[in-house]
Amino acid sequence: MEADVTISLNKGVADPEGSNVKKALNLLGFDEVMNVRTMKTFRIDLATTDRVKAKKDVEEMCKKLLANPVIQSYQIELR
Amino acid sequence: MEADVTISLNKGVADPEGSNVKKALNLLGFDEVMNVRTMKTFRIDLATTDRVKAKKDVEEMCKKLLANPVIQSYQIELR
Repeated sequence: MEADVTISLNKGVADPEGSNVKKALNLLGFDEVMNVRTMKTFRIDLATTDRVKAKKDVEEMCKKLLANPVIQSYQIELR
Repeated sequence: MEADVTISLNKGVADPEGSNVKKALNLLGFDEVMNVRTMKTFRIDLATTDRVKAKKDVEEMCKKLLANPVIQSYQIELR
């Protein structure tokens, strides 16, 4: 089973990488770019077929290691 | 219109961040984690409603700035 964990910054948290990419795209002539936000995805291969356990474990991974709940939120997609 | 550009490493390219995350998860007791790959997503707000132009422009952004074609590939999702 495969889990995609997407970590994004909470609303109101500055995203300097995103704003620099926006500036660079505007400088390259892409004037229609209004805003850029960055996100990180971890694609995790799991040696289990139990969907419920997988979901529970991946949530615990987010809380223990992958995400910083003060400034980030996570989204889990199982496949 | 919003575009999600996901940048992932090509097959065969080492992903040290991913393998360190795998090691850390295993050490935390998540033995079912077999492999971890990292990806980066840029969520781009575009001031256009022309889907065809948006797609074309975002592809050019990938080629010019967002992705390094030697080691990375990109995937575009328009919404």
